Amino acid sequence: MEKDKLKTGILKKEIINIFKKFGLSNNHALISANALINAELVGAYGHGLSRLKMYCDRIKKKVINPKPKIKIKKISQSISHIDADNSIGFVAADIAIKEAIQNAQKTGIGMVAVKNSGHYGLSGYYAEQAVRKNLITMIYTNAPPAVAPHGALKSLFGTNPICFGTPTGSKIPFILDTSISMINRGKIRFAAKNNQKIPEGVALDKFGKPTTDAKKALQGVQLPIAGFRGSGLAWMVDILSGVLTGGNHAGRVKDPFEDFSGPQNIGHLFITFKTNLFVKNYNTRIKDNIRKIKRLPKVRGIKEIMYPGQNKYIRLKMNSKKDIKILKSTKNDLEILKN
Amino acid sequence: MEKDKLKTGILKKEIINIFKKFGLSNNHALISANALINAELVGAYGHGLSRLKMYCDRIKKKVINPKPKIKIKKISQSISHIDADNSIGFVAADIAIKEAIQNAQKTGIGMVAVKNSGHYGLSGYYAEQAVRKNLITMIYTNAPPAVAPHGALKSLFGTNPICFGTPTGSKIPFILDTSISMINRGKIRFAAKNNQKIPEGVALDKFGKPTTDAKKALQGVQLPIAGFRGSGLAWMVDILSGVLTGGNHAGRVKDPFEDFSGPQNIGHLFITFKTNLFVKNYNTRIKDNIRKIKRLPKVRGIKEIMYPGQNKYIRLKMNSKKDIKILKSTKNDLEILKN
Repeated sequence: MEKDKLKTGILKKEIINIFKKFGLSNNHALISANALINAELVGAYGHGLSRLKMYCDRIKKKVINPKPKIKIKKISQSISHIDADNSIGFVAADIAIKEAIQNAQKTGIGMVAVKNSGHYGLSGYYAEQAVRKNLITMIYTNAPPAVAPHGALKSLFGTNPICFGTPTGSKIPFILDTSISMINRGKIRFAAKNNQKIPEGVALDKFGKPTTDAKKALQGVQLPIAGFRGSGLAWMVDILSGVLTGGNHAGRVKDPFEDFSGPQNIGHLFITFKTNLFVKNYNTRIKDNIRKIKRLPKVRGIKEIMYPGQNKYIRLKMNSKKDIKILKSTKNDLEILKN
Repeated sequence: MEKDKLKTGILKKEIINIFKKFGLSNNHALISANALINAELVGAYGHGLSRLKMYCDRIKKKVINPKPKIKIKKISQSISHIDADNSIGFVAADIAIKEAIQNAQKTGIGMVAVKNSGHYGLSGYYAEQAVRKNLITMIYTNAPPAVAPHGALKSLFGTNPICFGTPTGSKIPFILDTSISMINRGKIRFAAKNNQKIPEGVALDKFGKPTTDAKKALQGVQLPIAGFRGSGLAWMVDILSGVLTGGNHAGRVKDPFEDFSGPQNIGHLFITFKTNLFVKNYNTRIKDNIRKIKRLPKVRGIKEIMYPGQNKYIRLKMNSKKDIKILKSTKNDLEILKN
């Protein structure tokens, strides 16, 4: 695949300018650009620049509100409810994790529910913010239908990630950010756009047949991890982020690329709490935990047992030193959106 | 296998008397007997009477404390820390879920961590208590080593269940209570004894190669669900229930059947919160959610898409009408323990 190289700083400025052109405030454009650039740097391309045009299209078609009046309602010192007024998801999530951090810092535990939001990119990106403030965090969001409930022949659950983050007593945080789908929809979309195949056993076409054709998979269903277990976890995430928060649920979250008939009204749930609620030496304890696991005998070919988030951190550090490579198609999007 | 039938009431009295004989108070004996009987009635035999002798053995060998001085420390109105003083796990968990329920009723959200506890049976059993009080709950506990971390050649994580419960607006609660292990060791042992193969993808041999040979698997390790994803979830549960709470972690929880060198010091974490924090019509919303999913087209042979906990509830109702069938070996245990 042909790729263009761009300085991160220049690219970021371009994205900010594009978002501002589409009506976002300086601050909201910056928040959104940072999230997109981060996704590129950690290698989560399905959540990166490949989505920029979609966000702009949704703003243009008035299903993302570029000038949202976001309301934060305090339920208690620990608990807040945010109505994101159909903002771009990045902004809603950024406000929500900051609120959850504040609540936890005040009372030990924070819980923030968000409704009327949109796709916010990577849960792990927000988890990192809480972990940098020395908090543990659990984050849930739903997403457009992609995975069939166990026993069903039709997609309804989103890839509904389960995200958990904790400080590790070292500079690399523990960030588990795992979809309950065998493959991320973003990855299939990316593969489809670039005529790549997807792995076997991760998706079915619209007739229920296994496929490695990304375009056919987009019309079919993604398989959940571990059968009824993964289906149950996806259902849990739909309840926590949708039913509980006032967001859409039960398959009503619209596909942001395909359905412009209204806002997504995605819901998110952010839980945060202090590491020292019950033990004084949390950092020592988790360091010991990770060290003990890393010292286990390894499967042949495995040099190091990595904890969740470790590889992503290493990729981020490496990629931050280099220019960003973007696809020709993304470069074209950028050029069109700029002008 | 030959089985004996016993009236539930009579069996319960016998278990209570046995626990009392081994030094438990009336109340603690009742709590423990109820949990064991419940496990039998829902068909979770591995958490039922087959463990009675083990509990008594551990009391006799002074690694379970029959007369614990359980301390509840209030961290805040929402948060409590329980030192279970090496009580039988049922009692610690019963006190903890009640505390978590009270905290949530007072402040909207409750978090209770437990240390110095033991195996408490089924997480779902405690989740049901919270759901009956119209609360949502998330419960985590660790367990003795059974599953290899992704990339490791040695078991370290327990089967570390993830449990989530919510009211449904109907009499049958939604209780997801799912292990992160592909298979339990008992099943591999049984297959090895009977020269049966085990399914693909559930275990590795001692060299780290996938195997369906049960004997080779016994010398190797069991795998987590969904590779690095399940491994990450198991790691998360070990951190939440062990590192955070002050309980054992990183593979230090002793096997209750085999290791009498000290107490287990298992940790648990109970999170509870109100359903109406963010929406007024939660019950209507979740009823709609479940109805929409149940109405999806179904895989051939599937009559109804069941939500987690539904089958268990149906089993409980059916079995509650009948006498309890117990194995001859369990009956023998009962007779010996009684006298």
